[in-house]
Amino acid sequence: MKKAVVLLSGGLDSATTLYIAKAKGYKVSCLMFDYGQRHRKELNSAVKIARLAGCKYYILKISLPWKGSALLDDKIKIPVHKKGKFSVVGNHIPSTYVPARNTIFISFALSFAEAVGADSIFIGANIIDFSGYPDCRPQYYKIFNKLIEQATKKGVEGGKIKIHTPLIKCTKAEIIKKAKKLGVPLKRTWSCYKGGKVPCGVCDSCKLREKGFASLNMEDPSYD
Amino acid sequence: MKKAVVLLSGGLDSATTLYIAKAKGYKVSCLMFDYGQRHRKELNSAVKIARLAGCKYYILKISLPWKGSALLDDKIKIPVHKKGKFSVVGNHIPSTYVPARNTIFISFALSFAEAVGADSIFIGANIIDFSGYPDCRPQYYKIFNKLIEQATKKGVEGGKIKIHTPLIKCTKAEIIKKAKKLGVPLKRTWSCYKGGKVPCGVCDSCKLREKGFASLNMEDPSYD
Repeated sequence: MKKAVVLLSGGLDSATTLYIAKAKGYKVSCLMFDYGQRHRKELNSAVKIARLAGCKYYILKISLPWKGSALLDDKIKIPVHKKGKFSVVGNHIPSTYVPARNTIFISFALSFAEAVGADSIFIGANIIDFSGYPDCRPQYYKIFNKLIEQATKKGVEGGKIKIHTPLIKCTKAEIIKKAKKLGVPLKRTWSCYKGGKVPCGVCDSCKLREKGFASLNMEDPSYD
Repeated sequence: MKKAVVLLSGGLDSATTLYIAKAKGYKVSCLMFDYGQRHRKELNSAVKIARLAGCKYYILKISLPWKGSALLDDKIKIPVHKKGKFSVVGNHIPSTYVPARNTIFISFALSFAEAVGADSIFIGANIIDFSGYPDCRPQYYKIFNKLIEQATKKGVEGGKIKIHTPLIKCTKAEIIKKAKKLGVPLKRTWSCYKGGKVPCGVCDSCKLREKGFASLNMEDPSYD
């Protein structure tokens, strides 16, 4: 059975990506990070989702003491979504961007994949309904896949480890549709940048999610 | 003053790289990793060297629970150097290779550099007197520099963060000569894969170092 490592944040996109990898027949191991994010809500969701999907998982604790992001630094406010304007508009990268976060996450996934003989890494990156982060774009993944060929023993010996981004060009509504079809426990996914009892409903991430559910005339079960 | 992040392992090459970055006029911060390596000797050396160089430093604790290397797994023996044969001969990558180690280290350095406004990352990678690791070769760094342009906010906005590998094509003897000239505390550097009181003298890393000192008719002060 071919093996894959899935980067699981606990949000809608990564949970759907996990179910896509499973549906493609991979034996999936999940990788999660406790990286000093403001709350543990997202991580708790990730653990629940990995368990529901019957996957093994590692939670890696890493520190980014230099911060440089609203998600890591309590002194920087999480921006409130401005009506109709997602941060991606005008190429503005918002303060929730964490320097090199996906590069760090994928590097660990690559180490994991090579050590256990997995040939695939899955990540729920998306450029349609997204916050404008550079490390979510296809050109980034294209070059990272080239880097892997040079970076690893497996690559040098002619083998392949490939990063897959099955949702990269999907709208949030399309992702929700796929998630429903694959049985993703939507209620357990957590997308909000904050860690309240229910999602804040005003950050970019909440608004993107709301837009997706609204366009499908669906209720978002995470508010239940 | 331009800023740089130097990846410091505590070995001869990374210590020399630190002194090169300082000589080039950079304000240097050092980054070290406690990644489950067999011993803390190397890390202690790194701390001493950073202090002697008057640099700030972070030690990041990371875990690679999947192991996959003789440096992480006590069950795998550190190979003894075979006379005249370094592991690179015949393109063999030895069991001391740690999957994606440099990719992980550089990713953190990239996050650090972007967060503090540094435009350079220095690493003591080398392909002449080396153990054959894929993530030490120029083609790997060439692609990583391309990845940085796509991976970061700074890159997308037209700025640059560049990985420098000033020792990549030096022999061990040339590195030792540079180190002496720059005042690197050679006695404090630790290259051995094991963590004894003195270097084991039989692993690839010790043998490469020995060859360098011998060709210069110098005594290696790390045995004192």
